[in-house]
Amino acid sequence: MTGAGAAPPAIVSAMRAAIAESRTVLGTTAPNPPVGAAIVDPDGRIVGLGATRPPGGAHAEVMALAAAGERARGATAVVTLEPCDHIGRTGPCSRALIAAGVTTVYYAVADPSPQAAGGADTLRAGGVRAHAGLLADEVRAGPLAGWLFRLRHDRPRVTAKIAATVDGRVAAPDGSSRWITGPAAREHAHRIRAELDAIVVGTGTVLRDDPALTARSADGTLLPHQPTRVVLGDRHLPPDARILGPEARTVLVSGHDVTAVLDALPDAADVLIEGGPTVVGAFLTAGLVDRVHAYLAPMTLGSGFAAVSAPAVTTLTDGWRMRRTGLLELDEDILLTLEPTR
Amino acid sequence: MTGAGAAPPAIVSAMRAAIAESRTVLGTTAPNPPVGAAIVDPDGRIVGLGATRPPGGAHAEVMALAAAGERARGATAVVTLEPCDHIGRTGPCSRALIAAGVTTVYYAVADPSPQAAGGADTLRAGGVRAHAGLLADEVRAGPLAGWLFRLRHDRPRVTAKIAATVDGRVAAPDGSSRWITGPAAREHAHRIRAELDAIVVGTGTVLRDDPALTARSADGTLLPHQPTRVVLGDRHLPPDARILGPEARTVLVSGHDVTAVLDALPDAADVLIEGGPTVVGAFLTAGLVDRVHAYLAPMTLGSGFAAVSAPAVTTLTDGWRMRRTGLLELDEDILLTLEPTR
Ligand SMILES: NC(=O)c1ccc[n+]([C@@H]2O[C@H](COP(=O)([O-])OP(=O)(O)OC[C@H]3O[C@@H](n4cnc5c(N)ncnc54)[C@H](OP(=O)(O)O)[C@@H]3O)[C@@H](O)[C@H]2O)c1
Ligand SMILES: NC(=O)c1ccc[n+]([C@@H]2O[C@H](COP(=O)([O-])OP(=O)(O)OC[C@H]3O[C@@H](n4cnc5c(N)ncnc54)[C@H](OP(=O)(O)O)[C@@H]3O)[C@@H](O)[C@H]2O)c1
Repeated sequence: MTGAGAAPPAIVSAMRAAIAESRTVLGTTAPNPPVGAAIVDPDGRIVGLGATRPPGGAHAEVMALAAAGERARGATAVVTLEPCDHIGRTGPCSRALIAAGVTTVYYAVADPSPQAAGGADTLRAGGVRAHAGLLADEVRAGPLAGWLFRLRHDRPRVTAKIAATVDGRVAAPDGSSRWITGPAAREHAHRIRAELDAIVVGTGTVLRDDPALTARSADGTLLPHQPTRVVLGDRHLPPDARILGPEARTVLVSGHDVTAVLDALPDAADVLIEGGPTVVGAFLTAGLVDRVHAYLAPMTLGSGFAAVSAPAVTTLTDGWRMRRTGLLELDEDILLTLEPTR
Repeated sequence: MTGAGAAPPAIVSAMRAAIAESRTVLGTTAPNPPVGAAIVDPDGRIVGLGATRPPGGAHAEVMALAAAGERARGATAVVTLEPCDHIGRTGPCSRALIAAGVTTVYYAVADPSPQAAGGADTLRAGGVRAHAGLLADEVRAGPLAGWLFRLRHDRPRVTAKIAATVDGRVAAPDGSSRWITGPAAREHAHRIRAELDAIVVGTGTVLRDDPALTARSADGTLLPHQPTRVVLGDRHLPPDARILGPEARTVLVSGHDVTAVLDALPDAADVLIEGGPTVVGAFLTAGLVDRVHAYLAPMTLGSGFAAVSAPAVTTLTDGWRMRRTGLLELDEDILLTLEPTR
């Protein structure tokens, strides 16, 4: 295997473009990985960009090759994941690249899935130079994180979100919680929603707040991708609950078993628990939280619902200590990202 | 009055040195302002530094002049506050500067106190050039903030501190709270303590945690200045409570009236409420919190004491919305500073 330590600047920026392209399909490709690809001509110009289509559709390389057309001959392909080598619902990308006359391939992350791996070998056997590892860390921690997590753990990566005051309140005693965080934080949260496979809430949140749980832009219009909505709990929802609206799929999971939620999402790579406190606490207690997104508003409330409810906790060491992996200022609010120290 | 817009670089750095010097006496000068002064010779060298001594002792200018000795003749004095003009427990600084042969004075903030103002006029009458305003915003928001607040509002500036998890817990159900935040945050909090006039807690915190509430360095040794400790509440403290130890003064205020705490500190400029949740909530409810310091640790707890308890709050708009004026990373923890939007 050849490393990508000395990739030319045009190739590095093409990889950044491929990463950005792959972000546009986050949440829409499960069980396939959200991959981005760029075709770069010998002058360093990007002549084709593509990303994974929904299951059954074309892979990123094929989309990018189609966009490049004849300009792919003699060009370099830049892909966020090693081109696949198996004939699934689409032909193997390795062969498509060879057939298109690509001479060199840079990819970020080697494909760890047993059925698809081997693409780089096929490329080399076909006379194409293949370089691994370009911006691999960025891709691994970024757009491919959920998919890689699922491959390794056989379940989606779970993010728990809270939107709280600095004293950890997510709603006042009368249930009012609109709005604790400001427009920038809400817009950020909606953008995250649009990159996910599913959003989970408890019946308590639905019955109290009647949220639509759709992903919307600042002006209220629906974003292109809507994640599946999941409600956990026994109580019945009123038939006019907004979460049952036609904008997205909704799955009702009765009972209190958090693993049943994940079982109901067999392909999902990235799932967000949006509350309330009881359901977030249940996922934490089950050891099923891989990331916390805490949006914190510059206010104290002094009363009402705490962000997380885990009644089994009795002493400080029962809590979930993590490490801070992100800190973002969103106007007056901040977003803290925490991840377990494993 | 002459502005200080075009102060030479040596004068600007002397003002920074004077500001730093004034920080070393924070918490020790009430009712006098914590002022810093530097004497700068014609070559731009600092030949004397000084800061306000405890009440009855010398003012900053006199300390700096004493350090400079004969080198003050023909020199420039740089002071964080307009030199005083009144004969209090010490002679007026304006005259001391004239007598020492200083030719120019730069000061940051004009003295707003009726008895002490007029120093600049006296200086000019004595043939000394006086320039106002150099780094005035920095001094006003920094070392002189508490003293200026007290002049304007006739009470100390009150900071409420919480050290919590991201879900706003300050202790587990069994009372354990050691340690939620890490060493860097604790050291920061101790450094802040050492700059204050007083620290306030409720009987609940004393009876549960038995804190010493002294200001210590990382290795446990006492810092030079120890703020007065105040305990609010009716319950009696055990005679061996650490807060009754000899390291600092302790004031017991019975009852639940938060203004009685401030009345018991008639000179204090800067007071810190260190908890617990009930007493922080009472100060908030009384409208007596001018700043919140929220140290937040990367953990969720899911149970136990919330950081702030204000039982009268019923709906979201009853809460205290502020603006974020500071965000500091302290290893794995963060410190958020909030201030009312008035
Ligand atoms: N600011 C925010 O980020 C945010 C987000 C969401 C909610 N909230 C606030 O949170 C409040 C609702 O709190 P909540 O805790 O009731 O909401 P919740 O967690 O959404 O719902 C709790 C309910 O879900 C069911 N449930 C599902 N799994 C469970 C389990 N493992 N253990 C126990 N019960 C389980 C139970 O109802 P059944 O009896 O039906 O089984 C339970 O009463 C609302 O005031 C809302 O505004 C705030
Ligand atoms: N992590 C942190 O930053 C931090 C800091 C401090 C405390 N804590 C935790 O907080 C817990 C203690 O909580 P707490 O709320 O009991 O502590 P607290 O606020 O220190 O004490 C409350 C007590 O103070 C008295 N009091 C004074 N003013 C009052 C008022 N205006 N209204 C009502 N009562 C008033 C009452 O006792 P009387 O009956 O004696 O009058 C009341 O029970 C402990 O577990 C401690 O570990 C954590």
